[in-house]
Amino acid sequence: MLKIIKIGGGIIDNEQDLEQFLQTFSEIKEPKILVHGGGKGASKMLNQLGIEPKMIEGRRITDKPTLDVVTGLYAGNLNKSIVSKLQEFGCNALGLSGADGNAIKGSKRPVKTIDYGFVGDLNDKSVNKELFQLLIDNNITPVVCAITHDGNGQLLNTNADTIASTIAVAMSQENEVELNFCFDKIGVLHDVNDDTTLIPKINETLYLQLKEEGVIFEGMIPKLDNSFKVINAGVKNVCLVHARNINSEIKTILC
Amino acid sequence: MLKIIKIGGGIIDNEQDLEQFLQTFSEIKEPKILVHGGGKGASKMLNQLGIEPKMIEGRRITDKPTLDVVTGLYAGNLNKSIVSKLQEFGCNALGLSGADGNAIKGSKRPVKTIDYGFVGDLNDKSVNKELFQLLIDNNITPVVCAITHDGNGQLLNTNADTIASTIAVAMSQENEVELNFCFDKIGVLHDVNDDTTLIPKINETLYLQLKEEGVIFEGMIPKLDNSFKVINAGVKNVCLVHARNINSEIKTILC
Repeated sequence: MLKIIKIGGGIIDNEQDLEQFLQTFSEIKEPKILVHGGGKGASKMLNQLGIEPKMIEGRRITDKPTLDVVTGLYAGNLNKSIVSKLQEFGCNALGLSGADGNAIKGSKRPVKTIDYGFVGDLNDKSVNKELFQLLIDNNITPVVCAITHDGNGQLLNTNADTIASTIAVAMSQENEVELNFCFDKIGVLHDVNDDTTLIPKINETLYLQLKEEGVIFEGMIPKLDNSFKVINAGVKNVCLVHARNINSEIKTILC
Repeated sequence: MLKIIKIGGGIIDNEQDLEQFLQTFSEIKEPKILVHGGGKGASKMLNQLGIEPKMIEGRRITDKPTLDVVTGLYAGNLNKSIVSKLQEFGCNALGLSGADGNAIKGSKRPVKTIDYGFVGDLNDKSVNKELFQLLIDNNITPVVCAITHDGNGQLLNTNADTIASTIAVAMSQENEVELNFCFDKIGVLHDVNDDTTLIPKINETLYLQLKEEGVIFEGMIPKLDNSFKVINAGVKNVCLVHARNINSEIKTILC
């Protein structure tokens, strides 16, 4: 089973939590890929440089100076600090942006009502499966940041959930794949305030029923919609899990 | 023949020259590795962030905030912009810091009279030959920045000339290697102001004679001393060459 784990800001912005996660991640015996988002560092750095961070509906508008900042932070500082920590923990990690080995080719999002700037969209041909397979087959663990390229010399800021999903689907053609989205809960809960009400397994029928009943609501709906799309495209399991539990059974498995 | 090319600030700080160089580099048919220094961007960025760049005898003192800046710039901005450009030119480049795949393990320079901070020294076991060979054998071109790690989670700012030399020597155990140092001249000149006086080939005997005669002097002496050390350690040729001429015969070959 190839395990693909995606972590986001919640874990990245806390040095101690991140270190604990990386220790746990390095203990996973199966072949694995880590995909990481950016965290709050980008807005902080933009402010330090006197560039106003621009967000529309929670999405970053990536003009040229912003792209430079996120490229330095995500592909440089964050990626290399994660990789060097994993090396310390005995995991042979290798950091990748989408440009490296043409790992992930995106295309600049077309301007409709909003110009997102240098933001990449992916499609089902975006992932260089051969590269990921070569690395995995040689016991190298790819660590992928949220920067892709367009093949014409342009780097693109790209959603890390989308990157993880697209890699998972592409790799599922040759591998049994489990995709883990880390988030701030231990999984899908019957009662959102009570961790003892974890739902360990959900298939699409149960999902529709839970949505109907109002147990799954708001932000969880797009998360689960996307997860079942990924499963229907060939990925065996998608897990919603807290970062500290990735190497345990405490999670919700969607299948 | 495996070609290893090292470029420094002179070419990196000029966008047009860099692009022209990358085009030429991508046209080299043989297996190849690019090693790049940093350029002036680091001092500029440090100033923007209100951190005073500290240099002693032309060498950067790398405290923690400086390490963060050079890691973001070298391993992030510069490395990914070079890699994405090479991808555009049809060269399957993949960027590496020393932490990635444990490519280059250094050790923090011991403090004697000067504390250089997070600066890495290399030795003859520093290079992960198997990783470079794996990439090269799969038609992937490693693009190495001047950041290494110590294997214990610490990134280290490391001299790019040293990285290039150390990789060249390590790879020469299994490959015929030519190491190219790009600099601002077309090679070693009899008359430093006259490009028609290029000396196309120098062996160690001729070098000692030219040094004796004062034809080779000042900054060229450590360059050539280092080059012959590399040759004596197994590298077939070391070339001193202008970046625009790497794919031509206009260069000085040391052998």
